[in-house]
Amino acid sequence: MTEEIRLPESAVKTLSKKSTITLVAGKARILSVQNPDFVRADIGELCAPGLFPPGYKESLKETAETVLNEGRIGYTVPDGDNKLKKLIFKHSIPFDLQTLVLEKLRDEARNQGVDFEKYKEDNMQKYVAVTHGGTGALGASASMFLTDQKNLVVVNQRTWQNHNLIVDMHGGMIWPVPLIDEQGQVADPDSILKLCHPVKDKIAAFLFTLINNPDGAVITDPDEQAKLETIIKEIDVPLILDVAYHRLVFDGKETQSFSPEILRKTIVCGTYSKTLQIPGERLGYISCLDPRVTRYVYFYNRSHSGCPSVTSQRGLIAHLTRYETAPDEIETYKKRLLNEIETRRNILAEKVKEKLGWEIKRPGGAIYAVIPLPIDLIREFGDVDRFTLDLVDKGGVSAISGTVFEFRVRSTNNGYEVYTPDPTSPEVCYLRFCYGFTPTDRVELAVEHIKNFITNR
Amino acid sequence: MTEEIRLPESAVKTLSKKSTITLVAGKARILSVQNPDFVRADIGELCAPGLFPPGYKESLKETAETVLNEGRIGYTVPDGDNKLKKLIFKHSIPFDLQTLVLEKLRDEARNQGVDFEKYKEDNMQKYVAVTHGGTGALGASASMFLTDQKNLVVVNQRTWQNHNLIVDMHGGMIWPVPLIDEQGQVADPDSILKLCHPVKDKIAAFLFTLINNPDGAVITDPDEQAKLETIIKEIDVPLILDVAYHRLVFDGKETQSFSPEILRKTIVCGTYSKTLQIPGERLGYISCLDPRVTRYVYFYNRSHSGCPSVTSQRGLIAHLTRYETAPDEIETYKKRLLNEIETRRNILAEKVKEKLGWEIKRPGGAIYAVIPLPIDLIREFGDVDRFTLDLVDKGGVSAISGTVFEFRVRSTNNGYEVYTPDPTSPEVCYLRFCYGFTPTDRVELAVEHIKNFITNR
Repeated sequence: MTEEIRLPESAVKTLSKKSTITLVAGKARILSVQNPDFVRADIGELCAPGLFPPGYKESLKETAETVLNEGRIGYTVPDGDNKLKKLIFKHSIPFDLQTLVLEKLRDEARNQGVDFEKYKEDNMQKYVAVTHGGTGALGASASMFLTDQKNLVVVNQRTWQNHNLIVDMHGGMIWPVPLIDEQGQVADPDSILKLCHPVKDKIAAFLFTLINNPDGAVITDPDEQAKLETIIKEIDVPLILDVAYHRLVFDGKETQSFSPEILRKTIVCGTYSKTLQIPGERLGYISCLDPRVTRYVYFYNRSHSGCPSVTSQRGLIAHLTRYETAPDEIETYKKRLLNEIETRRNILAEKVKEKLGWEIKRPGGAIYAVIPLPIDLIREFGDVDRFTLDLVDKGGVSAISGTVFEFRVRSTNNGYEVYTPDPTSPEVCYLRFCYGFTPTDRVELAVEHIKNFITNR
Repeated sequence: MTEEIRLPESAVKTLSKKSTITLVAGKARILSVQNPDFVRADIGELCAPGLFPPGYKESLKETAETVLNEGRIGYTVPDGDNKLKKLIFKHSIPFDLQTLVLEKLRDEARNQGVDFEKYKEDNMQKYVAVTHGGTGALGASASMFLTDQKNLVVVNQRTWQNHNLIVDMHGGMIWPVPLIDEQGQVADPDSILKLCHPVKDKIAAFLFTLINNPDGAVITDPDEQAKLETIIKEIDVPLILDVAYHRLVFDGKETQSFSPEILRKTIVCGTYSKTLQIPGERLGYISCLDPRVTRYVYFYNRSHSGCPSVTSQRGLIAHLTRYETAPDEIETYKKRLLNEIETRRNILAEKVKEKLGWEIKRPGGAIYAVIPLPIDLIREFGDVDRFTLDLVDKGGVSAISGTVFEFRVRSTNNGYEVYTPDPTSPEVCYLRFCYGFTPTDRVELAVEHIKNFITNR
């Protein structure tokens, strides 16, 4: 018998992946305990003390009380509790998709000669599946559509780093294109289609983030939406729509609706991690007009993780129920939360301009801003990764290097490969600053820390 | 643009899979509410009211209290809280693996000239990763070892149905062999090796269940263990050891240790779902002497589900901490739980013999028994699936048909395929009765229901 485990090449390759965010977050976790002035703006979490989702906390207490009587915390079905699915359908999924599903149910009820209201109540849960956070929703989508023949997922070249990992770990490869800039301006459709042309037959899906991480890019202008739709229609594959920061849009603006013909082929991947400040609870969802897609999650969850945590599901049920029993409370909670995040964004942009003299393009939504760094400054540190690590170690602020969010593709001897631009490249010369995690009264402190760090270098 | 989503063949195949357990459990859930005499013995859960893991409930309450102050329930690292990993290492993983890891750490400390106790405290967590239940642990293992070249996992032909789904959904195929019978007797090594010979180069891993679902088979005899080890050594691939029902062994017996040469290549997949009555919390673990294997879970979780639920992790930390602060309480809790399950098993075996005249081979561990059904009786119903469904609908008892747990392999035009014997076949002519879920005072009632159902057919 051989003496040790021999790992396949694919597993060895996985193990070699860098995890810069974990490195920075690990340092920041320790330093922020030692130094009360340390400001964390690294992890992609929303933290707004006092603004916890109504009902959630009470449900945790209730579960604690009931488990002794029930003698267990049992499973729900693998793709989530039916009651929760209905609440998600009613209160969480994008309005345009909800409308389309309801139209379909109305037609079906009419054809079967049954009462629409009852039919709706009995069937809406088929269009929602509960997942382990947004990651679980995206993972299920990747698992569903990626094959040996079609293994590419088109994505904006600046995107959440996990999009790359999720596609890769499900046997595919992202195909990054410069689709949308931080102001929500979409590229000329022809230029994108040209970039996709060489691999058109290999594309399994188009992944679009409604409000982008790391730059908060969001389309609020109908003309930009029209360009996006042209591209999607031409590529003609299912649209995986990552709506992680759904409804966190500033300046009184709103995201644009998708046209029905695109919505019919859209898999909405949602999460409560960000908007409800419960990333540790692992709750998300998939919604789609095609019930085969939601049904697939039943098998995906059963074979990868089991049902989402039941204590968490109960908490979310309790919270979403308040949408019906206490709509005013919910309205106030949502407004206060949005207002608090928008305020932080404004302070950040103003103070960076005032104290550092740098211009931030104000993000239209989500909880992040891209702070561009002067290239000459970065050269002094070597590269942007070094700058970021030094800022954590000596500057008292943790933010994430631009190298984490930028992906490009190049051809190799036997195909294509995804890579990240060199950390000295101007394209990655920025910090992702998560003001979602920084208390409002500490955003300015963070900017001061950066200023001091640069001044005393 | 085409009008609808076109699903790949692989996804369509997945959607066509039967889910008999979900069907039976769905019916049982409804009927048991309508009829207080209905006895559920279908789902694989342990339910022992009054015997909930000490500390867990208190932790849920505490989390509820703290979230408002913290303003969030944040992530842990994707493969689990370090504190939890250490507690799992100390109190959950099999003793023989723990010993081997500690030997390794002792050698390393000696070579580096550092204090062993401190070195141990700083490093033991590298040998544990927290997963989304046993499913998450098995999923990560499948993801790690399955490749296009080596895509087979050897497994007992009578096994937990999810083993098949997990391997399949990660791109592999199980290779079922008649390895072990319900009395814990292992087949002659040559016969098993002969069955594996045609595909030897395609075998990625050997999956063994320490205490088998559905029949409670467990090796407590050194001679049987020796046969198993001979087989594993000859096949010479990593051993994935499913220890879902770890330490739930009856009659004062114990599972056998594995020899160090096998342990060195073993991936232990554990879960708290069954032993702690918290399947809905989704907590399990992987432990391995090779820290690359546990590290892999970091990437697997990040790309499939995120970290295990943090509220659940906190509950488990609170419970496992009691192993150190209140060892007597834990000892009593564990004894009472084992005693209660063993009592249920005894009642079941006695009553089935007394009232139905059928002989059950008493399971050596876990929470299930296989109740063999007379073939003539089954013929009257058509097949065993029909019998099971009728028993739920009209008999007031829910148990699972033997067809769910039996796998065979046969050759096809282009290779091999896994199949389930026909529901009329004597091999599948049994019920899996989960006495883990049936309160002690209702086991006899279940047997009476079966008797009445048969008498009045």
